[in-house]
Amino acid sequence: MREALLAHADGSARVDELLITSDAAARHPDLVTDAAALGVRLTTATDDVVAALSETVTPQGVVAVVGFLDVGLDTLVRQGPRLVAVLADVRDPGNAGSVVRAADAAGAGAVVFAGDSVDPYNGKAVRASVGSLFHVPIVTGVSVSDALATLRKAGISLLVADGAGEQDLDSTTLLHRPTAWVFGNEAWGVPREVIEQTDAAVRIPIYGRAESLNLATAAALCLYASARAQRQ
Amino acid sequence: MREALLAHADGSARVDELLITSDAAARHPDLVTDAAALGVRLTTATDDVVAALSETVTPQGVVAVVGFLDVGLDTLVRQGPRLVAVLADVRDPGNAGSVVRAADAAGAGAVVFAGDSVDPYNGKAVRASVGSLFHVPIVTGVSVSDALATLRKAGISLLVADGAGEQDLDSTTLLHRPTAWVFGNEAWGVPREVIEQTDAAVRIPIYGRAESLNLATAAALCLYASARAQRQ
Repeated sequence: MREALLAHADGSARVDELLITSDAAARHPDLVTDAAALGVRLTTATDDVVAALSETVTPQGVVAVVGFLDVGLDTLVRQGPRLVAVLADVRDPGNAGSVVRAADAAGAGAVVFAGDSVDPYNGKAVRASVGSLFHVPIVTGVSVSDALATLRKAGISLLVADGAGEQDLDSTTLLHRPTAWVFGNEAWGVPREVIEQTDAAVRIPIYGRAESLNLATAAALCLYASARAQRQ
Repeated sequence: MREALLAHADGSARVDELLITSDAAARHPDLVTDAAALGVRLTTATDDVVAALSETVTPQGVVAVVGFLDVGLDTLVRQGPRLVAVLADVRDPGNAGSVVRAADAAGAGAVVFAGDSVDPYNGKAVRASVGSLFHVPIVTGVSVSDALATLRKAGISLLVADGAGEQDLDSTTLLHRPTAWVFGNEAWGVPREVIEQTDAAVRIPIYGRAESLNLATAAALCLYASARAQRQ
């Protein structure tokens, strides 16, 4: 909630209204004063209303109505990002939110929810991002193919995480350039035609007997590998 | 299910019984013949029974009754592992299972469920491990303090993942030795007295504005950093 008000204060999001239970208002008087200072409309509501809106089993008694300011892909590339995560048809909101959190931690300049990817403002995705949805510019409403073409035209390398990739994440020398990482659907991975649009398919080495890694874990390993290489 | 039968075949686990619906038996005749060949008792059961036992909303129609063969910590250290994950009071089964999966992928020799950590055979933990619970030796029933003392006596370096650690994961030179990584509770992290028992507290650098990383993501980054350094 604090993240939402901070994002409102710095102009990266717009909080239209804060709904809060009287209990929560008593517990967090700073939220009430901050919202008032920022000109955010404050409405007290019953526990039931706030619980229903927060779509979670352990609601915290306060809900923000936020109008997100998605960034357009053209605007994004003009900012010259060094690191971007592209979700290609990622369907699970928990995974998507966790990737946003990892992308934020790794210092990425944006997360692109491309193709048939889940709505980034799905409640579960918002919660899994643990505030990072307010930190990292989000691009939506673009096909995977258009996203990759626009990023490439801006001089950004395209790498795709793929268990069968020809490059090994721990030994590849492709990581120091400005890079967009493409992460595919949890079940079927990245289709051949998307892989062909990228500069290289990179596999995370499996040193044990696991068949694969969780999508959010794989994304964190790839994004951090780039963050590290870009700073060396 | 195949992982369970494979583990039974190589002696790392004991499958006592396979309960299967007639639909699932028709879909997976190989499971039935494999179980029979391995001398595993096969029982056909109704959808309801299998669904209740599998504790999940989308049961696959087959449940294995597995007697796990936990490894003792003394046995483990005699095997001279190069990489170990120690869960110190990790309570969330999904996180714990994901750490087992990441530890398996990074080639770790064991995962120690120490202190008040969740039961590794909790259904949610088993599912989150995606088969890796059958690949990586699991140690249970040991206090965090005893686990660390035993590992240290065996000459294994003790590193703890800690957001306030004095060493940076991307620049520390401590990763090439045989190492046990300690990961703490999701909410309160690792207590001071545990940190004092380790050789160093290591933080994952946060290049953006995220406050922290998910436990399983953090574990994957730490374990892979060691796996990479040990192979250089």
